[in-house]
Amino acid sequence: GFSGNPGLKGSSGESALSYHSAFSVGLSEAVSTTNVPIRFNKFFYNDQHHYDDVSGKFRCVLPGVYFFTYHLTVYMKDVKVSLYMNDKPIMFTFDKYQDSNVDQASGSIILRLEAGDEVWLQVYGDEASLGVYADNTNDSTFSGFLLYPDVPAAARKR
Amino acid sequence: GFSGNPGLKGSSGESALSYHSAFSVGLSEAVSTTNVPIRFNKFFYNDQHHYDDVSGKFRCVLPGVYFFTYHLTVYMKDVKVSLYMNDKPIMFTFDKYQDSNVDQASGSIILRLEAGDEVWLQVYGDEASLGVYADNTNDSTFSGFLLYPDVPAAARKR
Amino acid sequence: GFSGNPGLKGSSGESALSYHSAFSVGLSEAVSTTNVPIRFNKFFYNDQHHYDDVSGKFRCVLPGVYFFTYHLTVYMKDVKVSLYMNDKPIMFTFDKYQDSNVDQASGSIILRLEAGDEVWLQVYGDEASLGVYADNTNDSTFSGFLLYPDVPAAARKR
Ligand SMILES: [Ca+2]
Ligand SMILES: [Ca+2]
Ligand SMILES: [Ca+2]
Repeated sequence: GFSGNPGLKGSSGESALSYHSAFSVGLSEAVSTTNVPIRFNKFFYNDQHHYDDVSGKFRCVLPGVYFFTYHLTVYMKDVKVSLYMNDKPIMFTFDKYQDSNVDQASGSIILRLEAGDEVWLQVYGDEASLGVYADNTNDSTFSGFLLYPDVPAAARKR
Repeated sequence: GFSGNPGLKGSSGESALSYHSAFSVGLSEAVSTTNVPIRFNKFFYNDQHHYDDVSGKFRCVLPGVYFFTYHLTVYMKDVKVSLYMNDKPIMFTFDKYQDSNVDQASGSIILRLEAGDEVWLQVYGDEASLGVYADNTNDSTFSGFLLYPDVPAAARKR
Repeated sequence: GFSGNPGLKGSSGESALSYHSAFSVGLSEAVSTTNVPIRFNKFFYNDQHHYDDVSGKFRCVLPGVYFFTYHLTVYMKDVKVSLYMNDKPIMFTFDKYQDSNVDQASGSIILRLEAGDEVWLQVYGDEASLGVYADNTNDSTFSGFLLYPDVPAAARKR
């Protein structure tokens, strides 16, 4: 008899290309409240809408390893800021303001997140710590991105 | 009849592995001119040559989402710097210099770029803002990298 | 005759998903020794154990392009820090401490590493440069991650 039909072509490989989660946000004015998430309201990038400007929190949708970084203008008061993961402060940045000497404070961290985990910045301490400043020519920013997605074993071995 | 021919081997997975664009540059001396791109002339990494030290600009070849960061030594004068995307300043860092108190100023941002888009740093204001300093033991740097390439749908579905 | 057997399933695509190398570490107390690697002993992320807290060094296992960043609290003394690659200091950060004005100093760099290459931070100069501070509410951190793995041509073309 005739030769049978050729087999099906194999499925194409799994790739990292579809796993995107990144945000880069700023402030339009100085932070005015302590002990609540800082609500960044200026958007440089937030295509996946994983940073929520209503809550002020980044909420993890794609589990994996994330990088976060922030750069804050220190003006008129000291800056005391914590980076929170869920309800726990896990990193602290303190920069003293003195004598009209405007400063810049910053921090970076890498964290493994599960879906639903939230990460945000918050001023701790009293009103004397409200030195996170911003206006038209002074930015204070918060950015983050998914570095390594957790890929289901099924997808990886396929 | 005979067994059919074996199927074609699956096409190799489209991966992010071939999309590389990164640069990390520094200054060998203090910035001396305002309102023009800062020309970083010390190279830590620039394998794809997407940062051009003649123009002082990073020029996007691979469209996608990029991360940029800079760290500047503040010495002798104040530092007023803007990060430009094409002809528009989109982020501003100000750090005041005072009383021989050398400082460090920094910023980070995530941006979606199209091929041909340019990103650079520039001092704004007058000569009193020329405090971006560098010498053998004081670095001022600018780095950036492609985070998520835009991959043509054709390549992704293959 | 009968239809032939289906062809073999295609091999899964080579992807960047399996190349992970990242660390994010902090200090629990101020640095007390100059001219030796700073040993960060607080771990935010180190799943691959590529940062070694005994030597204080990140050791490259997966060759490729890496991003490194550090953020240091400047308190009580000046901060003079070098980022080393193997036995060579390649980036320098200096931030002066003055008048109880706590500051923040930071740096970032992108480097191509081969397997076995080591990267670390080190205070240079004398005891007056030992201003890298940390305690429960003041972090000083060092983070890094593999950005683009070098993938053997064989794996890429498969
Ligand atoms: Ca200052
Ligand atoms: Ca200082
Ligand atoms: Ca300060």
